[in-house]
Amino acid sequence: MDNGAPTPAAPNGDAPPVMTRAMTEGILFTDQYQLTMAQLYFREGLADRPALFEHYFRANPNYGSHQAGFCVNAGMAWLLDWMEAARATRADIEVLRSHRSPSGQQVFGDDFLAWLSEHGSFDQVSIRAVPEGRVVHPNVPLAVVEGPLGMVQILETSLLAHCNHQTLIATKAGRVAEAARGRPVLEFGMRRGPERGANAATRAALIGGAIATSNVGVGHFVGVPPAGTHAHALVQAFMALGLGELGAFRAYAATYPDACLLLVDTIDTLGSGVPNAIRVFEELRAQGHRPVGIRLDSGDLAYLAVQASLLLDQAGFDEVGIVLSSSLDEITIFQILAQIDQEAGRYGIDPARLVSRLSFGVGSKMSTSDGKPYLDGVYKLVSIHDGAQWVPAIKISDNPFKLQTPGDKDVHRLYDRRGLATADVVSIAGHPLPTDPLVLRHPFDPALRRSLRPGDVSEVEPLLTDVLVEGRRAAEPATMAELRERRERDLARLDPGVRRLVNPHTYHVSITDELLSLRQDLVDATRTDVTDTEAVQP
Amino acid sequence: MDNGAPTPAAPNGDAPPVMTRAMTEGILFTDQYQLTMAQLYFREGLADRPALFEHYFRANPNYGSHQAGFCVNAGMAWLLDWMEAARATRADIEVLRSHRSPSGQQVFGDDFLAWLSEHGSFDQVSIRAVPEGRVVHPNVPLAVVEGPLGMVQILETSLLAHCNHQTLIATKAGRVAEAARGRPVLEFGMRRGPERGANAATRAALIGGAIATSNVGVGHFVGVPPAGTHAHALVQAFMALGLGELGAFRAYAATYPDACLLLVDTIDTLGSGVPNAIRVFEELRAQGHRPVGIRLDSGDLAYLAVQASLLLDQAGFDEVGIVLSSSLDEITIFQILAQIDQEAGRYGIDPARLVSRLSFGVGSKMSTSDGKPYLDGVYKLVSIHDGAQWVPAIKISDNPFKLQTPGDKDVHRLYDRRGLATADVVSIAGHPLPTDPLVLRHPFDPALRRSLRPGDVSEVEPLLTDVLVEGRRAAEPATMAELRERRERDLARLDPGVRRLVNPHTYHVSITDELLSLRQDLVDATRTDVTDTEAVQP
Repeated sequence: MDNGAPTPAAPNGDAPPVMTRAMTEGILFTDQYQLTMAQLYFREGLADRPALFEHYFRANPNYGSHQAGFCVNAGMAWLLDWMEAARATRADIEVLRSHRSPSGQQVFGDDFLAWLSEHGSFDQVSIRAVPEGRVVHPNVPLAVVEGPLGMVQILETSLLAHCNHQTLIATKAGRVAEAARGRPVLEFGMRRGPERGANAATRAALIGGAIATSNVGVGHFVGVPPAGTHAHALVQAFMALGLGELGAFRAYAATYPDACLLLVDTIDTLGSGVPNAIRVFEELRAQGHRPVGIRLDSGDLAYLAVQASLLLDQAGFDEVGIVLSSSLDEITIFQILAQIDQEAGRYGIDPARLVSRLSFGVGSKMSTSDGKPYLDGVYKLVSIHDGAQWVPAIKISDNPFKLQTPGDKDVHRLYDRRGLATADVVSIAGHPLPTDPLVLRHPFDPALRRSLRPGDVSEVEPLLTDVLVEGRRAAEPATMAELRERRERDLARLDPGVRRLVNPHTYHVSITDELLSLRQDLVDATRTDVTDTEAVQP
Repeated sequence: MDNGAPTPAAPNGDAPPVMTRAMTEGILFTDQYQLTMAQLYFREGLADRPALFEHYFRANPNYGSHQAGFCVNAGMAWLLDWMEAARATRADIEVLRSHRSPSGQQVFGDDFLAWLSEHGSFDQVSIRAVPEGRVVHPNVPLAVVEGPLGMVQILETSLLAHCNHQTLIATKAGRVAEAARGRPVLEFGMRRGPERGANAATRAALIGGAIATSNVGVGHFVGVPPAGTHAHALVQAFMALGLGELGAFRAYAATYPDACLLLVDTIDTLGSGVPNAIRVFEELRAQGHRPVGIRLDSGDLAYLAVQASLLLDQAGFDEVGIVLSSSLDEITIFQILAQIDQEAGRYGIDPARLVSRLSFGVGSKMSTSDGKPYLDGVYKLVSIHDGAQWVPAIKISDNPFKLQTPGDKDVHRLYDRRGLATADVVSIAGHPLPTDPLVLRHPFDPALRRSLRPGDVSEVEPLLTDVLVEGRRAAEPATMAELRERRERDLARLDPGVRRLVNPHTYHVSITDELLSLRQDLVDATRTDVTDTEAVQP
C-alpha cells in the first residue's frame, strides 16, 4: 500500500498493474457504472456527443427536531482543482485493463481504453454554476455541466461527492452561526470527521459561518490562520509529573503570555480550573500582559458560564473571554443562550454582557452535519445533442417530487419591494422571463401559482455564472473573505421566517409556464412511448 | 490553489511560503493546539519524554430508533500509511514559521521549528492495537500509542480522524449486512459521501459487511474489483435520442451480454421497465447468454420485488437476481424483508426463495452512518515517563462516565462455556489476570460486579497486538479477505442479544479490582491536590 506516491509507470509485460492510494483520488475516484456506461456510449458512438447534466438537491436538510430553510452553496472550487488534476494516466488505464469478469473476459475493451486514454480528461467540459457562498434552495440547478457524454458521465461521482458534502457542511455551519447570535464560532471537527474529508468539511464550515478553524493545513491553505490553545492532555501530563494544573497553566502562560486561553475542566471547573486560571491571569497582569480567556468543555455550560463569569468579574477580569465547547450544535447553542438570558440576572450578571464575551468551539456535530449527514443532491441528464440539435431529457417517477425538469435552464432570484429575496425562478435557457404578470408555478404542484406585477419586483438577479469554459477556469478562485461576504449579503436579504432554526417558512422556488409546458409535453410523449412498448410486448 | 502537486521547496528570501492542497494531508493534518502544546512541551524539556496515549470510544453508536450493540474496528492500516508518509518538510516548517499572532509575533519560534524539523516524524512511535475487523466494545483501548510526547500529541488528530471514521462506517455496514440476512450488500455511497473521506468509508464498509463497492479506485486498491451497471442517465439519453428504454436495454445487453443487469424504474417499473427487461433477457437467452438481473431504485421495494419476481418467473427467469436500492439502511432492509415474509405468499411467491434472489445496493445512509454520523472516540494520555519511571495520568470529570482509567493496560476477551464472548476485561499491563475467582467490575459503577470461576471460562484471548514498533510495521497489512474473516469469526462468537439491531443487550466490559484501586487512589490524590490548591488561593 502506498499513500501519496507519484503515479507509477505502466507495468511491463505481464506484471500486475500497481494501484496506489493516490490513484484512488484521481480519475478512478468514480463509480464503476460511470465507466461501464461510458464504454457503452463509446461503442454506440455517443461518447463524444455533447450532453448537459444538472446538479441540484431535492430538499433542505431535515435534522429531525429542526430543519434548514435554505442551504449555503459550497464545493465547486475544490471540484475544479480535482478536475484539473484528474486525467486517465497509463497506470489508471492498466488497472482498468486488468479488471476481469467472472468468466475471465476484460470488462473494459482495448478499444474503449484507447478512447479513454486519449479523451480521459475534463478539458472539454464547461460548467455554469451558482457561486459558492450563495444561499441556495431545493430544485434549483446549482451547476449545469456541458461536455462529451462519456466524460460528463464519469464526472458525476466526484462532482456530487465534492459539492453535496461541502454544501451540507456549509449549511450546518450557517445554522450554528445563526444560533450563536454573531458571536465567534470556531471549527474543531477534524478528530471525528470523515478522515481526509474532514479537510473539505473545514473549508465548508469557514464558508458557512465559522470564523476560524483548528485545522492547521486547511486554515493556512484557505488563508485563515488556524486557532488553538491546549487540551486536557497538557494538564494531565503536568499533574502526572507532580506539577499540577496550576503548573500547567503557568507553563502555558509563560509560553503564550499574550495568547493565554486556559482549559479549566480537567479536574473540577469551579473548584480548581477557574481559580487556578484567575491566579495565572493575575500573574500575567502583573507582568503587563492581557489574558485572553478560559474554555469550558464539559458540564452544564450555561450554568458554568454564569458562575465562571462571576469569578472572573470579581477578580477584575471582566474582559476575559469564555469559550464554550462540548458536543455543540445549533440547538444546544440556542438552548445555552436562552438559559443565560433567563438565569444570569438571578446572579446579578447582565445576560447581554455575558453573551458578548462568549465564543463557541463546535466540532463533531457541525463537521458531520449531525441529524442529517448527507445532502440528497443529484446529477441528472437534462439534454443531449442528437447530432442536429439539443433535445431535452427527462426522468419520470412514481413520486411526483422526483419528477425532473428537462432542458437547459436559467435561474433568476427575484427580490420584493423590501429588497428581500422572494423567489427563485427556473426558466428555459435564453428565454426572457415574462414580466406582466410573471406567473410563478410550484415545481411539483402546478395548481399552486403566484402572479407578480412589475411593481412587486425590485430586482431580478441571474444566479448561474460561467465557472469553467472548455476546461479553463472563467475566473480566479474567490478568496475566503469574498465567499463569506456572499453568504452574509444573501442572509441579510432573506426573510427571517426562512432563516429560523426550527420549522422555517418554505422559500418559493418556481418554474415558468413555458418550462412547465415543456415538461408536460415530454411526460406525455414518454407515457405514449410506454404504451406503445407495452402494445408490442408478447 | 493546487491539488496533489509535489511539495514545493522552501521559499527564498521574503517570498510567502507556498501552501498546497497536498500539504493539508501531511503533517499539517492536525489541530493547531497539538502544535501549540508541542511547542510548550519543547520549551519545558518534555517534547521527547516518553508518553502513552489510548484510543477508545465511550459508547456504541445510538441511531435514535435503533442502536449498535458492538462496533467493528477499522482504520489502522490507512493511519499507518499516513504516518509513514507524514513528516515535517521544509515547506511545512516555513508555513508554520509564517504564522503570526495578532501582535505580529511568530506563533512558533525558530527553536521549536528546528526541533520539529528534526523530530517531526513518527519514526519513534510504537502502537499496540486491536486488529482491524475485530468486534470491539466501549471503554476498551483500541490502540495504545507510545512515543515522544510532542509527536504522539501531534498524532492525535489524524489517528482519531482515521480510526473513528472507519470504525463508525464498518459498524454501520455490519448492521446493514446483519439486516440483509446474508444476502449481498453492495456499497454505493461515494456520491453523497464526505468527498475524499468517501474512500475511507468504502474501505470500512467492505471490512464491515459490504461484499462489493461501486468505488473504482478503492475497489481495485483493496483487491475487491468494483461493481456497477448503469444509471437512469443511460435510459434518459436513449429516450431523448428517440431510441427508448428498450433501445437502452438492448444496447446494454449488446455491450455486456454476460453481465446484463438492468435498472427498470426510469419511466414505470412494472408497466415498462420490467417488461422491457424481460424482452431483452429473452433475446439474450436466445443467443445463449444468461441474464443477471434487474435493479429496483424507487417506490415500494417490497411490493415491487414481489411483482417483478412474478413477472420474471412467468417468463422463465426464476434465477435472475433482483437488486434493491434507494435510501436503504439496516432498518429499511429489515422492514422490506419482514414485508416480503408476510406478503409474498398472498401472490403465490415463496418468501424464502424471493429473499434468496435479492441483493442490496446501499449508499448514503451507510457511508455517512445516518442517525449517528460520528463515533465519540477519544485519545487520552494515560501515562508519562517522569525521567525515572512511568507514572499514570488521569482526567477526572463531573460526568462519571467520562472518568478515565489510568496507566498502561492489557485487554483480554473471555469466552464462556458455550464458546461465546462474555466479557472484555481491562487490566494493568503485564499483571496476570486473577483466576479463582476472576472478579469483573463495571468500569463506572464498581458496585456492579461479576465473579467467574475457572470452569466458567473456555478461553482467555489477549486483544492487543503490536502493529508498529518504533515506526516500523510489525506485520504485513492484512488482506481484505483476512479482515472480513476476523469480523465473521467474532460475530459467530457474539451473543445474539448483543447482535440484534434494536435495543441490544449490553456486552460486559469490565476492569479488574487492581485497576479499580489504581484509579481510585489517583482520583483521591488528585482531589487532595485540588484542595491544597484552593487552600493557597488568595
